Amino acid sequence: MKQKIKVVEGGICVPEGFLSTGIHCGIKKSKKKDLALIYSMYLAKVAGVFTKNKVKAAPVILSQRTVKRGKAQAIVINSGNANACTGKKGVEDAALMASETAKSLRIEKEHVLVASTGIIGLPMPMNKIIHGIWSASRMVKKDTACSAAEAILTTDLRKKEIALEVVLGKNARFKIAGIAKGSGMICPNMATMIGVITTDADIDQKLLQAALSEAVEDSFNMITVDNDMSTNDCVFALANGRACRITGGQTYKIFVEALKQVCVHLAKEIVRDGEGAKKLFEVNVKGAKSVQDARSAAKSIAGSSLVKCAVYGADPNIGRVLAAAGYSGADFDPGKIEVKLEKMLLVKKGLPVKFDAPAASNLMKKEQMVFTVNLNNGKHCATAWGCDMTEGYIVINAKYHT
Amino acid sequence: MKQKIKVVEGGICVPEGFLSTGIHCGIKKSKKKDLALIYSMYLAKVAGVFTKNKVKAAPVILSQRTVKRGKAQAIVINSGNANACTGKKGVEDAALMASETAKSLRIEKEHVLVASTGIIGLPMPMNKIIHGIWSASRMVKKDTACSAAEAILTTDLRKKEIALEVVLGKNARFKIAGIAKGSGMICPNMATMIGVITTDADIDQKLLQAALSEAVEDSFNMITVDNDMSTNDCVFALANGRACRITGGQTYKIFVEALKQVCVHLAKEIVRDGEGAKKLFEVNVKGAKSVQDARSAAKSIAGSSLVKCAVYGADPNIGRVLAAAGYSGADFDPGKIEVKLEKMLLVKKGLPVKFDAPAASNLMKKEQMVFTVNLNNGKHCATAWGCDMTEGYIVINAKYHT
Repeated sequence: MKQKIKVVEGGICVPEGFLSTGIHCGIKKSKKKDLALIYSMYLAKVAGVFTKNKVKAAPVILSQRTVKRGKAQAIVINSGNANACTGKKGVEDAALMASETAKSLRIEKEHVLVASTGIIGLPMPMNKIIHGIWSASRMVKKDTACSAAEAILTTDLRKKEIALEVVLGKNARFKIAGIAKGSGMICPNMATMIGVITTDADIDQKLLQAALSEAVEDSFNMITVDNDMSTNDCVFALANGRACRITGGQTYKIFVEALKQVCVHLAKEIVRDGEGAKKLFEVNVKGAKSVQDARSAAKSIAGSSLVKCAVYGADPNIGRVLAAAGYSGADFDPGKIEVKLEKMLLVKKGLPVKFDAPAASNLMKKEQMVFTVNLNNGKHCATAWGCDMTEGYIVINAKYHT
Repeated sequence: MKQKIKVVEGGICVPEGFLSTGIHCGIKKSKKKDLALIYSMYLAKVAGVFTKNKVKAAPVILSQRTVKRGKAQAIVINSGNANACTGKKGVEDAALMASETAKSLRIEKEHVLVASTGIIGLPMPMNKIIHGIWSASRMVKKDTACSAAEAILTTDLRKKEIALEVVLGKNARFKIAGIAKGSGMICPNMATMIGVITTDADIDQKLLQAALSEAVEDSFNMITVDNDMSTNDCVFALANGRACRITGGQTYKIFVEALKQVCVHLAKEIVRDGEGAKKLFEVNVKGAKSVQDARSAAKSIAGSSLVKCAVYGADPNIGRVLAAAGYSGADFDPGKIEVKLEKMLLVKKGLPVKFDAPAASNLMKKEQMVFTVNLNNGKHCATAWGCDMTEGYIVINAKYHT
């Protein structure tokens, strides 16, 4: 039987044994949902990747400890308040969120992950949150509407979710799903974003962590909205072992492939929903001397404010792409670089060729486009995703008041 | 007699023996000036600092060689076309600009520096430029209107210049002056900018280079408009030796001080004129473990898109300042950081204090403001300058078509 990966409907509760809900508990003035609860009926293996920011939010510190112990059964996430730069009280509040969630679900508090996103530096409205946790715990269900994906949003315009069914062989299948939030403060190294991945695959914690780290490197760490890294970023993966066993070798390879597909989908959705963004562009760098070089060049181009403005203006200003590659730190000979927009050659041996500028501009007027940059200096490649930069980004971030 | 540094009128021709002019030769469609010529009547010592971008414009490569030889007598600069990504033809064109300038001024072509700024990837209109060089060479004069400062501008809204008179003692004085251009693609490591400094001080080439490198580190390398580094950045200093001798010790110290004053003034003018910018903000980092840490933290805060948007919106969103310090790579304990806006304390021991938010917002409505960040982790400090990010930046860069 052939192995295959298929996208299915239904969001984060598609894998067996996962329940969730999202409610409005009163943190957001807007009456939008602001508390998500994700629950696994069975104790799950857990992996996590966290922000590298020195200034870490309280829930990040707490959840890092939980991930270190390797097991979890629930995740509670609030939006509207980041519980960051909140000192000792913030640490206590994060712990209280975990213990109240544990009590309400009758599980161990050591098995509860906590994440918060929103404004930095404000005290958490704990009365509302605790009340919300107890309400949510009574409402968790096989939630096909996936209100949890909605409840973790802040400046996002739409929810981000995906579910896959993976067939490994006869009677060997598993499901994997994910939700994410993020639209500003997005840059390499996990900017303001939260991701939760659920799977019913049966996999050891160390393998799960290795797979997640690898998948994040090629997805969430390759997107950029504004180069700002937040204090709250985290991606969690829970594997509750109700479906088939993933060992090393071929099954692991397919597991990583499916996990990457989930992460890349969510990452691209984050960029597409970038603050003020109207377009998504992909930067494929090939011919790099090392993977690191390929990643640096791709991220540098995708993150350049000038390239992003050029995409917004549908201007094939290829000099900005070359300049961004040039300051990326990647090793290459500027006289050998080649750049394509879709299939149209724009730069050959470091020099702009004569191309049909109106046709190129038309390609850039589409909602999605691909730049391919060949450094001609090796055989490594990487892909990064960026969004255009518009007046909308400025308006959102000049007016998102504390 | 007390040493003193005094700002004087007159621009780049204030130091003895320097002549200049700026004309329209036809590169810019707008009829604005696009060719500047700066000439020293006496062969001068020369120092230079150049872009670290791998993709270097042809004139940068040529001028690096000239600086290496240590002597120069003229600088020809065109705006409107960057002569970057122009291949072998670009290198020939830059050399032709040097040799025609040399012929027209009857000096050695090895003593001519060349710089170009403007659009990348287009061939240079050499007929117009050569014609312009010959016209300009007949027009160089003690130009108090400083049309050279005007002729090097691209998207800049105003010219940037300063002149100082320095008294070292009785009968020991020198003058130093500078012009610069730059308003976009500005980031640490010398983004799209050109700077020319003239002085009649008598100083050895090695000392001049050391002084310039030091001054650039604390000025042009500490400003940021959009984190994009260009292919064309360079700062030149010419010292023609007509005034007093600078040796080591105290005279050198004062020379560096004056040179820094010139560079800091021009650097701040560039930020103030940042594309779309309405405000200038200064970030003073102190208490850092190393100068490198202080610089990283200051530049990270000044360059954060979210901080820049907060400045635009006059929003004391101090969490963004903390987050930017946190991802700067600087070593500090997040529980010890202190932040002030002007004299108002906003963050103490890592926690936002209760402050008068409307008063803080009023401070941020001014055209200039100072953030002081104490990392409380050492005794090193650094200052960086940034501008607010407005819709104007987007409009300019989405519409500056190739």
